[in-house]
Amino acid sequence: MVSVEISSGPALSAALDEWRKAIGGAHVSTASEDVRAAATATFPTTATVGAVLHPANREDVQLCLRIANRFGVPLYPISTGKNWGYGSRAPVRDAVILDLGRLNRIVDFDENLAYVTLEPGVTQRQLYQFLESQHSRLWMDATGASPDCSVVGNTLERGFGHTPMGDHCNHVCGFEVVLPSGECINTGFSRFPGGKVGPLSRWGTGPSVDGLFSQSNFGIVTRMTVWLMPAPDKHTAYFFQTEGGLADIVEALRPLRLTGAIRSVAHIANDYKVLSSSGQYPWSETAGRTPLSRETMARLRHELRLGRWNGSGCLYGTRGQVRESRSLLRRALDGKITRLQFIDEGKLNFLRMAEAPYRLITGRSDLSRALRLLPPLLGLMRGVPTEDFLPSAYWRKPQPPPAKPDPDSDGCGLLWCSPVAPSTGPHTSEVVDIGEDIALKHGFEPLISVSLVNERTTVSTIAITYDRRVQGEDAKAVSCYRELTEHLLARGYPPYRLNVSAMEYGRAGGHYMDVIRSLKQALDPNGILAPGRYE
Amino acid sequence: MVSVEISSGPALSAALDEWRKAIGGAHVSTASEDVRAAATATFPTTATVGAVLHPANREDVQLCLRIANRFGVPLYPISTGKNWGYGSRAPVRDAVILDLGRLNRIVDFDENLAYVTLEPGVTQRQLYQFLESQHSRLWMDATGASPDCSVVGNTLERGFGHTPMGDHCNHVCGFEVVLPSGECINTGFSRFPGGKVGPLSRWGTGPSVDGLFSQSNFGIVTRMTVWLMPAPDKHTAYFFQTEGGLADIVEALRPLRLTGAIRSVAHIANDYKVLSSSGQYPWSETAGRTPLSRETMARLRHELRLGRWNGSGCLYGTRGQVRESRSLLRRALDGKITRLQFIDEGKLNFLRMAEAPYRLITGRSDLSRALRLLPPLLGLMRGVPTEDFLPSAYWRKPQPPPAKPDPDSDGCGLLWCSPVAPSTGPHTSEVVDIGEDIALKHGFEPLISVSLVNERTTVSTIAITYDRRVQGEDAKAVSCYRELTEHLLARGYPPYRLNVSAMEYGRAGGHYMDVIRSLKQALDPNGILAPGRYE
Repeated sequence: MVSVEISSGPALSAALDEWRKAIGGAHVSTASEDVRAAATATFPTTATVGAVLHPANREDVQLCLRIANRFGVPLYPISTGKNWGYGSRAPVRDAVILDLGRLNRIVDFDENLAYVTLEPGVTQRQLYQFLESQHSRLWMDATGASPDCSVVGNTLERGFGHTPMGDHCNHVCGFEVVLPSGECINTGFSRFPGGKVGPLSRWGTGPSVDGLFSQSNFGIVTRMTVWLMPAPDKHTAYFFQTEGGLADIVEALRPLRLTGAIRSVAHIANDYKVLSSSGQYPWSETAGRTPLSRETMARLRHELRLGRWNGSGCLYGTRGQVRESRSLLRRALDGKITRLQFIDEGKLNFLRMAEAPYRLITGRSDLSRALRLLPPLLGLMRGVPTEDFLPSAYWRKPQPPPAKPDPDSDGCGLLWCSPVAPSTGPHTSEVVDIGEDIALKHGFEPLISVSLVNERTTVSTIAITYDRRVQGEDAKAVSCYRELTEHLLARGYPPYRLNVSAMEYGRAGGHYMDVIRSLKQALDPNGILAPGRYE
Repeated sequence: MVSVEISSGPALSAALDEWRKAIGGAHVSTASEDVRAAATATFPTTATVGAVLHPANREDVQLCLRIANRFGVPLYPISTGKNWGYGSRAPVRDAVILDLGRLNRIVDFDENLAYVTLEPGVTQRQLYQFLESQHSRLWMDATGASPDCSVVGNTLERGFGHTPMGDHCNHVCGFEVVLPSGECINTGFSRFPGGKVGPLSRWGTGPSVDGLFSQSNFGIVTRMTVWLMPAPDKHTAYFFQTEGGLADIVEALRPLRLTGAIRSVAHIANDYKVLSSSGQYPWSETAGRTPLSRETMARLRHELRLGRWNGSGCLYGTRGQVRESRSLLRRALDGKITRLQFIDEGKLNFLRMAEAPYRLITGRSDLSRALRLLPPLLGLMRGVPTEDFLPSAYWRKPQPPPAKPDPDSDGCGLLWCSPVAPSTGPHTSEVVDIGEDIALKHGFEPLISVSLVNERTTVSTIAITYDRRVQGEDAKAVSCYRELTEHLLARGYPPYRLNVSAMEYGRAGGHYMDVIRSLKQALDPNGILAPGRYE
């Protein structure tokens, strides 16, 4: 592959002239604050950004790629750039950023066939508001990251959410892809002229290429169909707590996932994770010391009535189906948990009312700390995006998040390590034990959530959250991330997703990487699209 | 791409010598009856077969491919070659057949995580018997084609079955693939050395290449993990009939598929299809004339108590879940059908007993004709492969099938045309109307089954069934197939699968086919693997 070095040299300068002509000078930024911001993630990155391009539509994207090829200047596409914890907008290697935020049209929608076709700039908020404006009976699936996240971007990174559509990549089809050459293709059945099933079925006729364009640098997805789910008659959230029995819980839930009694992602967070999601680091309780020790955590957990592990999920269906699932879940968890609660919207309103008297009596509002998470979490369970989990990126900051949080520019430190493991008790225990031990050893709280993302595997998302403005923390965090990832890989638990500074951990499989390189060479002979990304 | 011509020339002869050395002379056949049989499908094909190779294992496959590259002789892989109606063992273009039947090991199995890893020579029967021998509580999904079909082969051709795992390609992962070069890769998470989630999760880290190896000529899948389902507490088959209301039925069933009230494929067959599945063409009633006219069909339908359209499917779950699904289905179909029946094993036994007195009273056994299909159909609904639908390939033969049916060598004519359409009433009606009109116009019975294969689309499988030994029928059938496919394509209904003589219908999408050619060139520069297949 051609390795292209970006610089402030003549190639970049000439390319910038052409890009300005192609998409308008107002949409090509070389302002130092813009390029510096675009290169800034929630952890140290080394690649520099030569400029930021803001194409308006697919044709602009094609022009930008053709110019990039002509001048040998690599482009790094981002959707909305909210890939926090995995790299935000920062490229893997030096590049010009292609910001697809202006490609924000919802181009097709069908209530009866339950799908929407959209561009990469469409945010979760926008899709949600669109469905509201249509008085649609359909739900989207939302991630907890931010309402301003791109639906397409999250899907291509294989993000996951909370409803039966939670494994995003498993519920999309019919991509429009601009290839590195600037040519455009439609995938699946979408390529048949006048075809009526492009947005409805995945495989198409002949080889299926959709998979090539997620977690890759083979093309830019400028349009995607996302399947939606009809709002069920009834949905009921479940919450449970356990002191030590995570392994038992996973063993109990796996059969329910396999039989479809539970059709959506179940999330099980440790005490640290719940605490960090619900507010700031307890600076006063710890007299400013970090990390939060297991002993202090245990004390706080007890005070706040958190479990060592805290599970949540949702049951969907008719009233009868939800009732049946509830009893199956109750039976499966019997004896393995300390508390099991079912909550729907009505019950939540009751709890909200109950909180005020509680505070009056106890003189403290700590109960509300965890309770505050309930409405947004219940919202996520029916596809309502929320900002309420974003503050967790500010966990280790000395002050609470500002009114308009921006983890990148606010110096929030965040690195996700997200190993995949078999959905069995022993494997889950091994992963979380490794996660907790290594995080604490490096001076970080182990903020861990175990998600039963599909029928047979868990993804444990281990967040290394810190304050980048504290001297030395960046290096410590990276060292922690690397030890974690390497240790987990060595034990057989590969990451489902990688950050822009850690692509080497995806290199495995002998001849396999040669194949990836051959495919890349075939589609991008000049190597101008996102060099280094997942390769 | 290099176009390779196979012949009896020196290249083939030299390659044969090398293959004999590599895998043993006993496993290389050039006997004229073998090569002629391998080139014979259930419709006219033109490609010739130079020899048939029978490698024993993956290493043999690698050797065979390396030799093919050296001598420029193309290889065409088949699993067990039961791809009836789409080409059987016959290659798209002249080639040497690589018969993978000896790669028939079940290499991994896990009861708790519900999967099995197997080679392409493993048949449905073998997998079923394996699960029995393990006293497994897991079910496979079976197609109605034949117990001797390859599980891997059917999956790679995107076949479908009857259980919630019915969309086969959607429930597999972790391929071992021998590339045209002879190199071997593992896909998904399987490529991580010591990785523990290879058989459990689909996407892996980085681009997902699995889709490239179904319906393609990019590589030979020598191993695949197939997910299984835990046997549910309860399953109940449903059957319904309607006179004219196919469109209404599809409208009624779509919401049940979308909400998951029905989690498996529903099949709706027309009267012709049911009749052809249950026995020979009514030669005596028609005084030997073909095709069976709509009027005669209507009379027979009435006598045999068939519906104009006859639906079937199955509900799975706990007793409570199945009860709930039954009532949802009953409510959805209310007023749209003439008959709705729920049948489980107990009820079937009762019906079997009832048949004998019925025959005694009426003096005829026609009721048993449709009833005979029930046990095998109920078996398919719990993953039990069956031979009982194979005789339908002999529908137009003058005699019933022989004891050991072999549609290829018995001169059965069979061509499947299988368009995909949105799961709506109007689209389904349009497809079946086109199918019935064109089939009858060409002198064939329209044998049509509409399958709600996923939440948003139907596949209509239109069988053109005839006797190849009747002069002129081959040409008529091909002409019928072509008009059908072209007409349906023009109306926006592309085929989900193509036969070896009809690959041109998959060529669509402008630059898309260039991409397929680039990928092919990257993986198979000498074009020695299955030239012409889905390209």
